[in-house]
Amino acid sequence: MSSKIRLGILGGGGDSLIGVLHRVASAMYDQYQIVGGVFNPVWEENIDFAKQIDIPTNRIYIDFDALIEEELKLPEDERMQVVSVLTPNFLHFPMAKKLLENGFNVICEKPMTMSYKEAKILESTLQKSGALFAITYTYTGYPMIRQMREMIADGAIGKVQKIDAQYYQGWINPIIHDAEKRANTWRLNPEKGGISCCIGDIGTHAFDMIEYVTQLKVGKVLADLNYVYEDNQMDVDGTVLIRCTNGVKGVIRTSQIATGEENNFTVQIYGEKAGLKWEQENPNYLYLLEDGQPLRVLKPGHDYNSKLSLEGSKMPPGHPEGIFDSMGNIYKGIAKAIKGESYNYGEFPTMIDGVRGMNFIERVVESHKKGNVWVNIDE
Amino acid sequence: MSSKIRLGILGGGGDSLIGVLHRVASAMYDQYQIVGGVFNPVWEENIDFAKQIDIPTNRIYIDFDALIEEELKLPEDERMQVVSVLTPNFLHFPMAKKLLENGFNVICEKPMTMSYKEAKILESTLQKSGALFAITYTYTGYPMIRQMREMIADGAIGKVQKIDAQYYQGWINPIIHDAEKRANTWRLNPEKGGISCCIGDIGTHAFDMIEYVTQLKVGKVLADLNYVYEDNQMDVDGTVLIRCTNGVKGVIRTSQIATGEENNFTVQIYGEKAGLKWEQENPNYLYLLEDGQPLRVLKPGHDYNSKLSLEGSKMPPGHPEGIFDSMGNIYKGIAKAIKGESYNYGEFPTMIDGVRGMNFIERVVESHKKGNVWVNIDE
Amino acid sequence: MSSKIRLGILGGGGDSLIGVLHRVASAMYDQYQIVGGVFNPVWEENIDFAKQIDIPTNRIYIDFDALIEEELKLPEDERMQVVSVLTPNFLHFPMAKKLLENGFNVICEKPMTMSYKEAKILESTLQKSGALFAITYTYTGYPMIRQMREMIADGAIGKVQKIDAQYYQGWINPIIHDAEKRANTWRLNPEKGGISCCIGDIGTHAFDMIEYVTQLKVGKVLADLNYVYEDNQMDVDGTVLIRCTNGVKGVIRTSQIATGEENNFTVQIYGEKAGLKWEQENPNYLYLLEDGQPLRVLKPGHDYNSKLSLEGSKMPPGHPEGIFDSMGNIYKGIAKAIKGESYNYGEFPTMIDGVRGMNFIERVVESHKKGNVWVNIDE
Amino acid sequence: MSSKIRLGILGGGGDSLIGVLHRVASAMYDQYQIVGGVFNPVWEENIDFAKQIDIPTNRIYIDFDALIEEELKLPEDERMQVVSVLTPNFLHFPMAKKLLENGFNVICEKPMTMSYKEAKILESTLQKSGALFAITYTYTGYPMIRQMREMIADGAIGKVQKIDAQYYQGWINPIIHDAEKRANTWRLNPEKGGISCCIGDIGTHAFDMIEYVTQLKVGKVLADLNYVYEDNQMDVDGTVLIRCTNGVKGVIRTSQIATGEENNFTVQIYGEKAGLKWEQENPNYLYLLEDGQPLRVLKPGHDYNSKLSLEGSKMPPGHPEGIFDSMGNIYKGIAKAIKGESYNYGEFPTMIDGVRGMNFIERVVESHKKGNVWVNIDE
Repeated sequence: MSSKIRLGILGGGGDSLIGVLHRVASAMYDQYQIVGGVFNPVWEENIDFAKQIDIPTNRIYIDFDALIEEELKLPEDERMQVVSVLTPNFLHFPMAKKLLENGFNVICEKPMTMSYKEAKILESTLQKSGALFAITYTYTGYPMIRQMREMIADGAIGKVQKIDAQYYQGWINPIIHDAEKRANTWRLNPEKGGISCCIGDIGTHAFDMIEYVTQLKVGKVLADLNYVYEDNQMDVDGTVLIRCTNGVKGVIRTSQIATGEENNFTVQIYGEKAGLKWEQENPNYLYLLEDGQPLRVLKPGHDYNSKLSLEGSKMPPGHPEGIFDSMGNIYKGIAKAIKGESYNYGEFPTMIDGVRGMNFIERVVESHKKGNVWVNIDE
Repeated sequence: MSSKIRLGILGGGGDSLIGVLHRVASAMYDQYQIVGGVFNPVWEENIDFAKQIDIPTNRIYIDFDALIEEELKLPEDERMQVVSVLTPNFLHFPMAKKLLENGFNVICEKPMTMSYKEAKILESTLQKSGALFAITYTYTGYPMIRQMREMIADGAIGKVQKIDAQYYQGWINPIIHDAEKRANTWRLNPEKGGISCCIGDIGTHAFDMIEYVTQLKVGKVLADLNYVYEDNQMDVDGTVLIRCTNGVKGVIRTSQIATGEENNFTVQIYGEKAGLKWEQENPNYLYLLEDGQPLRVLKPGHDYNSKLSLEGSKMPPGHPEGIFDSMGNIYKGIAKAIKGESYNYGEFPTMIDGVRGMNFIERVVESHKKGNVWVNIDE
Repeated sequence: MSSKIRLGILGGGGDSLIGVLHRVASAMYDQYQIVGGVFNPVWEENIDFAKQIDIPTNRIYIDFDALIEEELKLPEDERMQVVSVLTPNFLHFPMAKKLLENGFNVICEKPMTMSYKEAKILESTLQKSGALFAITYTYTGYPMIRQMREMIADGAIGKVQKIDAQYYQGWINPIIHDAEKRANTWRLNPEKGGISCCIGDIGTHAFDMIEYVTQLKVGKVLADLNYVYEDNQMDVDGTVLIRCTNGVKGVIRTSQIATGEENNFTVQIYGEKAGLKWEQENPNYLYLLEDGQPLRVLKPGHDYNSKLSLEGSKMPPGHPEGIFDSMGNIYKGIAKAIKGESYNYGEFPTMIDGVRGMNFIERVVESHKKGNVWVNIDE
Repeated sequence: MSSKIRLGILGGGGDSLIGVLHRVASAMYDQYQIVGGVFNPVWEENIDFAKQIDIPTNRIYIDFDALIEEELKLPEDERMQVVSVLTPNFLHFPMAKKLLENGFNVICEKPMTMSYKEAKILESTLQKSGALFAITYTYTGYPMIRQMREMIADGAIGKVQKIDAQYYQGWINPIIHDAEKRANTWRLNPEKGGISCCIGDIGTHAFDMIEYVTQLKVGKVLADLNYVYEDNQMDVDGTVLIRCTNGVKGVIRTSQIATGEENNFTVQIYGEKAGLKWEQENPNYLYLLEDGQPLRVLKPGHDYNSKLSLEGSKMPPGHPEGIFDSMGNIYKGIAKAIKGESYNYGEFPTMIDGVRGMNFIERVVESHKKGNVWVNIDE
């Protein structure tokens, strides 16, 4: 009998990038075995793909409901221990909810739900279930982000006094200026994408990251979004002034029309003693700026890093690891939790991150629609 | 008789950094000769310094009024043709005003005046005088900033759709947390520094730069400033949402409590075709981001640059020039104007920049004080 | 029956870094299943580790000979299709040889053998066997290295005229200055490490990389090695002048006493039209330098890259991949070859690379020992 | 009477870049006044240029001999105190020699002479003269190079154990492949350029820099030069193995056919405790690599720098200075020496640097011509 965690997967079949990311991540530390799932809504594509990745025929399910029904019939020590939900956004909520209700641990892609209301329901479902829930804000798994969090917690920069996060992409630029294209892009369709495109997709990463590294809570927001065209229903750019509950000010800047940008997500946190900076596109460098001192550049795998950071790199310094390794670290943390081992709260994002993320999205849109005014985020 | 422009200087004596910057800048292209001035309010220090830089005794003046009086007695072809005003901020206005009223061309350090009202008065003085007025927003003299301006004007990035400027410093951090220090720093004293510290000192650079490179006008602002302590009367950090008169949105981010930052001024402009980025601390690189193309890094001195940019570098590619060279380029442009030669409007900032800068400062503070609301900037 | 390739593994158990690298690499594209192996010479550690990664008990072998014997008893469609040799260096040759003699495909870590003579024997064994042999020069799997190779092949830089490769590390510095430590480090012990430390371990990477990206052959070498201490038997630093068979000159610079360097491997190739530069520690950037043109920075995942390069990235631009992904690409190419699918010769290094690498090491040491003279490398 | 040093200039008129560089450098610290010279061999161009930079008519000389003759007639307190020799290379020696013989201090551009023999003669002339001689290896004036020198002297990196300098340019690439162009380029003509192009022009910078920062002496060289074409008489690329008199090994790599490179001069020095790296194209960053520590990046103007380094920056941190400022620092040091003030030996290069540079060039060419063998450099 395998000692690995039995993992089921919903979605992620065919050429799905998110599917590759989760499969590789689950393999990184020899902790999981993918035992079954529904990889594609079309049966033939589902079965073809499942065979390709060696899923035994009896655990390739025709749909989500069948998966739950059949898995529950299996003895507990054969049943899936956790299910990764990689389906389109609108399916996250119903799937995660039913999984939790039936006692399955859940790993859920972001955004967790389509609305804050759904998020609150899911939170309450989780509380009743006793199961485990993780949401894959991938970037929190980077070793130097973990290092940033722990350095701030340890007082390396003193009390935080200034926050600045940027998430700039350019991929909507070729779409937004073409009326037909913008009408036919699902991300710009509120029925499929929810109430926000740019804030929903990438602003939430920035928001979650700020709370992750500082362990502060954002208390209110004032947002100026950009829809570019009148007929466009979803924001593709937006700047959000933030205020933490302890009064610290900051800004979140997001764009999908920053032409030519790829995935330029940066975090700058300044404290009373020093500053820390990080860029997702060069994730293995953490910059420590201290007044009157040479700039210091921390890198993964060195003894000067925290235990949490060091656990996130597999190779010695100078052997760059990337986004797959970051997601692998999140899966590693979840494995510890599933196995009942002790783990650091910073090892993977949870329901709290998911709920706050949905609240953030709705409050930002509210702030914008009310004319760029301050709106509170629930504690 | 020298063919060089006869330059007078007010202030900048002793160890003054701004004095060195202007003197070297004036020498860069063999265009100016410093013929006289008042370098220091203390007579002995004034005369000592003036002798050190070879000013003939008869043109070392006891004070500003004497300078004007005596210079006017000289025949026109001996008289100072232009005077650089490098004195403390509150003296800029009265000195520039009187100089203009007496027909002298003026090069003025920023901030131009202590208030928008003064700025408007000075503007009207200038109009009556027929003299020339330049304000030294130093950074606009960098070759790659000039290249950025001309590329945008030539449509290299298409219609501008997103603006982001950052000016982060950390030098006030060691001051702000000490009640005594913050009470005794002139920049934090409204009587000496005007109504704003951070926005006034560096925010204006960002504002001017945005208008310089895009040739758009900022139409309104919504600002959130940070004073950190209740007893502190001047902002030391602030984020400003901007909207250009043509509707383009952007953000100006400034801080003097970004601990460990030196002079981290960056500009990012994104258009419908491409994006352009520049960093003051590495001023010889201009980044062109075009969707689906390799990132291109433009550098000074290459034939692919515009004439305006090429005129701003003295050496072949690979020989880095810096901030002295940038200021030298501004002086070079002013020399052309004084000599009546044709010059590009982008060669040096003028009264318009000075007036708009003062308006920006006041509207930003107004926006903040009114509770972070939109406030219009005069056209 | 699984559609995945049945992979056996020799070595790589316990905390072995190389073990993790190969296991993850084999999982990256869902192409392999690890079906058995010998992971550790100590039986209990072997079995413990093997169980941990879910190897069925009957295919955890007591030693290498048992593995071959037992696997050969299995029907061909159950038998290991390829075996990865991750054992200490001196075991590479006997293991690879016996595997090939028994018809197994082999993936071998570098250095391939302990001597050029062994390498030639192995080459001849391979020729007789009809099996497949791959050697894991990991760095050739990076997408931008593949892009470099194909751009050079396509004439993007014109005829190559200058080659410069650097491989600087600092890890031996804390060892070399301590007589006891240097006596007890296996890499500095010729019985365990072969005739060269620095050239053998990292110089070969540089040599292989040059031939990989330029598709030129190095024809002769003149080397100056550094042993630092008289009692030290192995080089820890060395510079090698190279001349390609077509006359092109270049230099390979290697060091393990470049204090503070991590894994600083760079390649610079200049041609008659342009130059190309790459750095292993920032592997997702390829710099194209063309006279009179802006510097261009190519990144993975863009359509402007070659098919070979694009096959090597799993995520869209801006999602950094690293060394695990690079090794994954090599395993992907080997999978194609094993399955009989068509593949690009650049997808994985082969016996030719292994043989040339061993020849290079011996000729470099010979050149040094003869007093820094030119020595030919066999064609 | 001016307190400034009376400076004469030979050459550097018209559009000469080197002329601008020296004039601006001399103005940087208000230390020099250009009082006369011969700027151009053509009288009309000479006088036009001289007037343009305000030289009084009576000190615009018709030729070099006239300058010496007439200046000697002036009272000592009016006579030129130092003369900068900026003429074509072959004139450096006769001019410097005659100037020294007549008691003038000399600032000489590099290469100092056309041959080592001339260099030795000039050295002996200097010894007899009692005058001051400086040679403008411009790059040694950069603040972070000075910092590097002093950190090494202070033991910051421990005993030096590895040296690597690179000087790569690409400007000869468009010339070298065209027979007519290479025949007509003065740098490739031994009568005008001496015995070496690449080593003579840029290799000497690398050689001088190594000795400047480490304060070691290179004892012997083994060189492999590249002439690319048979009919080409001058090297355009070359790699030089070096050995210091204390046994430390290193390499100097130079090229003018590194296509697309601008002025890519880098120095890497590794010691038993740490390493230091610097790049001329980004001269304001000094990288300190220490085993097991974060990379540290030192920048100009900070208190952590040495006095010598701090004297080389005029502005606060974050205000980039460049090559003009570097040359300005050299002129500043020379001014101290002329005035009889105390100065640091590292403030400007002297005859020793000039003589050793010429010796280096000749030994490198000798090594290459003898078949890439070791050749000693005179102590």
